[in-house]
Amino acid sequence: MEPLGIALLGCGVVGSEVARVLLDTPNRIAERAGRAIQLRHVLVRDRHKRRSVSIPDAVLTTDFRRIVDDHQVGVAVELMGGIEPARSYCLQLLETGRDLVTANKAVLAHHGDELFSAARRSRRAIGFEASVAAGVPILAALSHSLAANDITSVKAIVNGTCNFILTQMTEQGQSYAEALAEAQRLGYAEADPTLDVDGTDSCHKLAILARVAFGTSVEPEAIERRGIDWLQPADLRFASELGYVVKLVAEAWVEADQLALHVEPTLVRRLDPLGQIRGPYNAIHVVGDLVQDALFSGLGAGRQPTASAVLADLIPIVAGRARAENLDFDAGRRCSRLRLRSPASIGSRFYLRITAEDRPGVLAEVAGVLARHHISIASVMQHEALDEQEGSPVPVVIMTHTARLGDFRRAVALIDQLDCITAASVYFPVAE
Amino acid sequence: MEPLGIALLGCGVVGSEVARVLLDTPNRIAERAGRAIQLRHVLVRDRHKRRSVSIPDAVLTTDFRRIVDDHQVGVAVELMGGIEPARSYCLQLLETGRDLVTANKAVLAHHGDELFSAARRSRRAIGFEASVAAGVPILAALSHSLAANDITSVKAIVNGTCNFILTQMTEQGQSYAEALAEAQRLGYAEADPTLDVDGTDSCHKLAILARVAFGTSVEPEAIERRGIDWLQPADLRFASELGYVVKLVAEAWVEADQLALHVEPTLVRRLDPLGQIRGPYNAIHVVGDLVQDALFSGLGAGRQPTASAVLADLIPIVAGRARAENLDFDAGRRCSRLRLRSPASIGSRFYLRITAEDRPGVLAEVAGVLARHHISIASVMQHEALDEQEGSPVPVVIMTHTARLGDFRRAVALIDQLDCITAASVYFPVAE
Repeated sequence: MEPLGIALLGCGVVGSEVARVLLDTPNRIAERAGRAIQLRHVLVRDRHKRRSVSIPDAVLTTDFRRIVDDHQVGVAVELMGGIEPARSYCLQLLETGRDLVTANKAVLAHHGDELFSAARRSRRAIGFEASVAAGVPILAALSHSLAANDITSVKAIVNGTCNFILTQMTEQGQSYAEALAEAQRLGYAEADPTLDVDGTDSCHKLAILARVAFGTSVEPEAIERRGIDWLQPADLRFASELGYVVKLVAEAWVEADQLALHVEPTLVRRLDPLGQIRGPYNAIHVVGDLVQDALFSGLGAGRQPTASAVLADLIPIVAGRARAENLDFDAGRRCSRLRLRSPASIGSRFYLRITAEDRPGVLAEVAGVLARHHISIASVMQHEALDEQEGSPVPVVIMTHTARLGDFRRAVALIDQLDCITAASVYFPVAE
Repeated sequence: MEPLGIALLGCGVVGSEVARVLLDTPNRIAERAGRAIQLRHVLVRDRHKRRSVSIPDAVLTTDFRRIVDDHQVGVAVELMGGIEPARSYCLQLLETGRDLVTANKAVLAHHGDELFSAARRSRRAIGFEASVAAGVPILAALSHSLAANDITSVKAIVNGTCNFILTQMTEQGQSYAEALAEAQRLGYAEADPTLDVDGTDSCHKLAILARVAFGTSVEPEAIERRGIDWLQPADLRFASELGYVVKLVAEAWVEADQLALHVEPTLVRRLDPLGQIRGPYNAIHVVGDLVQDALFSGLGAGRQPTASAVLADLIPIVAGRARAENLDFDAGRRCSRLRLRSPASIGSRFYLRITAEDRPGVLAEVAGVLARHHISIASVMQHEALDEQEGSPVPVVIMTHTARLGDFRRAVALIDQLDCITAASVYFPVAE
């Protein structure tokens, strides 16, 4: 059989690593797949940019048409990132009969329906394991290894930048700004970290997880989202005193035939599987009716872990046995007609930190507002003033029993209008 | 397409659960596989035994020939356990052209070469995900999702009985006997727990992991093995004071083109991924050259988690896309010609607890023996006498730097002959 021609779109950090493996150790893929490969094109914006891998001149190209027009290209690996032109290129490649491997979570989250329809029409495969948690094979687990399960919950830490920052803030007592600077210094955060720290990246990954786990197409914008860029060390310390750590949790779960989703800083018990995930690591905790629960973790970013997933997706495509497999994730799940639950109706326990004048009657006022919104209090802890000056407002941490997010938010809005409250309250859901 | 006929061999705890899913919700498999199924036979020893699932009389049989002779049986699920007659039945089924799903780690560990050869000859698939860590998809991860990696290490907790007992001893201060009784009461240990607590079960699973991760056939007897049935709470307490927990670790790793394997109670740092695995949970920590490290964990036993893996293996077989897949684990790994490293040459740090007379000069004697065997001491901690009587022998915990197991064992044998030593010394390797 003649070698399968491969085109690489994008040659950044991950693309360079994939190119390096394909050029330096082509047998690594060929032996596993039973067919030789040939890297025929690497699409770049600038031919002359210095790269960590030496790519033959004849392979480097700035012209996408060369790839589409080369009939020996059987599979394309898209590692450009961003929506356009990645989306158009992927569609054209699928429509002209090429299999696709992509790590592009933004395109998959926003245009997944379009891509998968195109793949079905031309009977091509899309491998996208690298789009969530890099080398951690959570999508293969959900679509194949746990295929006999009805999945009821996926709870995940899928942004290593945020988890690194939160770990630094928790364990080293750093401020958000200090921890971010440290993350940037170590290469765990980009110069502009917005899409990571505001939760957008986690929403993209949660939309992809929901597609595979529940067979449901979810708009990323429909996911309740809060980031970590506003967190204060005091809350992480108070959470710690209660036996919790704060994690940016991306969660999708089925309750009463509805799918609820959110990405939010969440209190997780320190001994819970997700509570133990530190630094740049990712983890996904899955609950299914047969397997009960399973945890998958590893580095969720980086050139080598991401290349591991890209190459794993390439192997069955090169071997010619990927087609039937990779598109069946939305065929069999019983819950593929799930409606989305309105965030306001989601029930949860809450951590609420109010900042109040240090005088009698304050707690009665606050408790009164909560009671009128059907929110009962599990515990109250009044702390020393954060600025350690006598007479300063004091932080009071209230843990609630289960309440509806809508009720809870309305109550917090009213509490923040009380005369005795001197700063905006802070709250997090508490993971069960 | 007509339904695929399934035969179930064995109807114990797991078999009953698989039968229940196949009989009560046949669509669960059919929808995922795109083909209907029919449970045609369930092989049992006693037709009249009460079972948790109601199996039609025409399906129950005590005669294996009925299954072999039924040409509508396309796949058999072997859940009998034990070596014979399971091994002979599996071979006959493969040789007569049936695909096989099995959870039988003893047969796979001892007769894997024979089974996989038979499968290759008749071009049939063997699905055996359930044989290691039940529903945790570690074998799929190693053979598919991490296929592009050269695996360098697999370090695992694969016996939930032992991990439960060790967790109870560590966290509740129970003795081995107390923790075992608790495990039996909760159904985590069998009436005769020998094969679990002496490490045999973990050796079987490590042999299977080594086959998939390294493409190497390992005799379970060639694996260095110690169980947990001799452990004393004092050592778990001393380990804890040093920041470690004791786990029954099954480990296979490549070093200088040799494969080393052992199953042993091992000191693991409390914050390490395996150190955080509690109770009946299993976990497998994999290191590969691209993915770096990944952790997989979940319940490693029980009817539903095991059924999850059995049914996941059934789906691609029913769909007719399993053949090429499940036998390629030993085709591509570069290291498939690894030689086994002799245990004596394995290097490790060690925890050594001696029990010595409480008088001057003892430590000098012991340190002298260690030094003559090229073993240097990293730390020494003398504890109070365990029986709290003055003048009683005292436990002294010595942590060594890296030493060769052969040297270390010779040194311990000599130390135990010293006059000042009043009881046999206890040692564990320390995981890096």
